[in-house]
Amino acid sequence: MSIFTAPQKIIDWIEAIQPLDEVAMQDAQQRLHALTKPHGSLGKLETFAIQISGIRREPFPVLDRRAVVIMAADHGVCAENISAYPQEVTAQMVQNVLAGGAAVNGLAKAAGAHVCCIDIGVRSPLSHPNLVMEKVASGTANMTVAPAMTGSDMLRAITVGVETMQRLEATQTRLVAMGEMGIGNTTSAAALTSALLHLPVDQTVGTGTGIDETQWAHKKTVVQRTLQRHRPSDEPWDSLRHLGGLEIAGMVGLCLGAALTRTPLILDGYTTTVAALLAVRIAPAVRAFLFPSHVSVEPGHTHVLHALAMKPWIDAEMRLGEGTGALLAMPLLAATSSLFRGMATFEQAHVSRALHKENGHAP
Amino acid sequence: MSIFTAPQKIIDWIEAIQPLDEVAMQDAQQRLHALTKPHGSLGKLETFAIQISGIRREPFPVLDRRAVVIMAADHGVCAENISAYPQEVTAQMVQNVLAGGAAVNGLAKAAGAHVCCIDIGVRSPLSHPNLVMEKVASGTANMTVAPAMTGSDMLRAITVGVETMQRLEATQTRLVAMGEMGIGNTTSAAALTSALLHLPVDQTVGTGTGIDETQWAHKKTVVQRTLQRHRPSDEPWDSLRHLGGLEIAGMVGLCLGAALTRTPLILDGYTTTVAALLAVRIAPAVRAFLFPSHVSVEPGHTHVLHALAMKPWIDAEMRLGEGTGALLAMPLLAATSSLFRGMATFEQAHVSRALHKENGHAP
Repeated sequence: MSIFTAPQKIIDWIEAIQPLDEVAMQDAQQRLHALTKPHGSLGKLETFAIQISGIRREPFPVLDRRAVVIMAADHGVCAENISAYPQEVTAQMVQNVLAGGAAVNGLAKAAGAHVCCIDIGVRSPLSHPNLVMEKVASGTANMTVAPAMTGSDMLRAITVGVETMQRLEATQTRLVAMGEMGIGNTTSAAALTSALLHLPVDQTVGTGTGIDETQWAHKKTVVQRTLQRHRPSDEPWDSLRHLGGLEIAGMVGLCLGAALTRTPLILDGYTTTVAALLAVRIAPAVRAFLFPSHVSVEPGHTHVLHALAMKPWIDAEMRLGEGTGALLAMPLLAATSSLFRGMATFEQAHVSRALHKENGHAP
Repeated sequence: MSIFTAPQKIIDWIEAIQPLDEVAMQDAQQRLHALTKPHGSLGKLETFAIQISGIRREPFPVLDRRAVVIMAADHGVCAENISAYPQEVTAQMVQNVLAGGAAVNGLAKAAGAHVCCIDIGVRSPLSHPNLVMEKVASGTANMTVAPAMTGSDMLRAITVGVETMQRLEATQTRLVAMGEMGIGNTTSAAALTSALLHLPVDQTVGTGTGIDETQWAHKKTVVQRTLQRHRPSDEPWDSLRHLGGLEIAGMVGLCLGAALTRTPLILDGYTTTVAALLAVRIAPAVRAFLFPSHVSVEPGHTHVLHALAMKPWIDAEMRLGEGTGALLAMPLLAATSSLFRGMATFEQAHVSRALHKENGHAP
C-alpha cells in the first residue's frame, strides 16, 4: 500500500465530479429512435452522441470550439539509451509544433482544433509566445535508480492539467484531444502498465515496426530493472510517482479536469491511455468523460484500452503520438453530435417504419 | 463461362485505364522520409498519401472539392419479404436525402462533400431539382425467378456510373465517396458474394444486430434458392446480370470511372464493396483507385474486403449504408494529403534525426 495521501485540493476535485446526466441521455436516446435510420444502425456514432449528451447535459450539443493539448516533458530514463532519438528532440519537437511544422499541426487544422502546447517538464529552457510555460521540473529523474518525481512535483503536474481544462472551458472549448511529446515516454508507459496491470514486460514494452531485437531486449531489461528497484504497487499514486513522466501526471490532471469541466476528452495512443487509466484508478467517475480513438501499434496500448473497457475505432497503424490519433477521431465525434441535430424523423420525412418489430436488420 | 461479351465502349474504357504514377509516388515517398516524424509512424496515412499522389500524378495534391454519390434502385427480390422495411422506403429515403434529412446529409456536410443522388432504378416515379434522373429500369426483376436485369440494362447502368465520374471530374471534384440506397440490396450483395467467392450463404447473409433467427433463416433460403436457380459462374458479368442491383451495376461504373478520371474513390459498406470487387474482376487496374473506409457489421463485408486485399481502418459498428462509413473516412483522407504538404523537414525544423539507423522505434 502507498503511504501517499492526496492533498485536500485533489480530494475536493474528485468529490466534485458529477456523473453523466441521465435525463439528457434519455432525451437523446428517444430522439435517435425517431430518426430516419434503422435503430442502432449508426453504431458507435449513436453511443458516443448519447455519452456526449450526458456530459454536456443537453441532447446533441454543438462542439464547435476544439483544442488539442500537448503535454511535453523529458525523461531521466533516457540516460539508459532506450530511445532511437536523442533527448534534445523533445525540446526541438516542441519548437517545431510551435512553428506549425509538426504532424499534429496539420491534423489539428483539419479538425478545427487550436493547438495548446505546454512545457510541463522539458529539460532545456524554452520560450515562445504560444508556449504555455508550466515547467514543474527539468525532466524526471532516471527511474532505474530513483523515483521519477517527488510527490509534490507529481501534484503540481496534476494541478497544471486540471487548471488547463478549466482555462479551456472558460474560453468555451467544448472538445479536447490529448497529446504528448517526450522522448522516452513509451518506456515510462510500459513500466506503468506492467505495474498497474501486473503484466510482464514482454507484453508492455513495444517493438514498434522494425525495431531490432537487441534494442527491444535492452528496453525490456531497463523496464524490468526499474520495476525490481521500486516494486511499485498497482496503486496509482505510488506507480505514477516512481515510474511516471511529468507529462503523464499532467495528463492525469487533464482527465480529472475533463470530468470537472464536463468536457469530452479524446485519448490518443499508449502514453495518453496509461494516463487515463491512472486517472480512472484515482477517480472512477472520470471514465465517462473519456473517448477512445485509434489503436497504436504499441502492443501495450491494447491492454490498457481493455483495462478501461474501451474499444478503439480507428486503426491507421500509427505510432507517432503528439495527439495525432486523437485528432483523427475529433471531426468524427464532432460530426456525430451535429449530425443528429439535423436529421429528420420518420414522421417529418414521411418514411415508412420497419414492417416488424424493429430488429436491427440492414435494409 | 459467360456468353456475355462487353461492348466496345466498355472495352475501350478498360483499356484506357493507366496505372499509378510511379514518379509522383517516389517523390511523395522521399518527401515523407524527410519530414519531422519517425519513418512510417503515420502508418496508413502515409501509404494512402502515396497512393493518392500516384493517382493524381503529383505529390500530396489538394482534395478540396468532394462529393458523395448515392446510387438508388429497387430490388425485385423484395417480393420474397427479405427486408425489415417495405420497398417504398427506397423512394422515401431518396426524397429524405434530397430534403437534407438523412444521416448521409449531416456527414456529407461535416466532410465538406456535395451530395449527388442518382435514381438509377427506383420503382416509383421520382422528380426533384437536385435528383439526377438516370432511371435504367423500375427496379430489378425478382432474382429468385428470373435474371435480375437484362444485359443491355446492366451496360446502361455501368455507363451511368462512368459518366457520373466524368461529370464530377469536369467540375474539379477530387475525392468521391460511394454510397447506395436500395431496400433489399444486402440480399443481392450476399448472392453476389456467394457466387464470386464460392462462399456458403451462412457466411454472406447478414444477421445485423438483433435480426431474429427466423428472418435470418428465411433470407438465407431466398439467397440459396436464387443461386440454385441461376447457377451463376464466378465471372463478373454473369453474376452481376443475374444477381445484381441496378445501383450495384451503377457503382461498378463509378469504380471504372474513378480509374479513368484518376479520382480517389472511397468505398462504404457491404454493397459498395461488392460493386468494387466486380469492377476489379472486370478490370484489375481499378483496384489502385479505391480506398477502404469502415467495416460494417454485415459479416460478408469482411470476406469481400479480404478478396480485395483491403483492410478497413474504421470500426464504428455501423450498418446504415448511404455512404455514411465512406464519409467518415473522407476528412481523414483529405487531411492526410494536406498534412504532408505543410509539415517541416528535419532540416527546416532543426530537429535531430534518429541516433541509429532508422528502425521504427516509437520515441
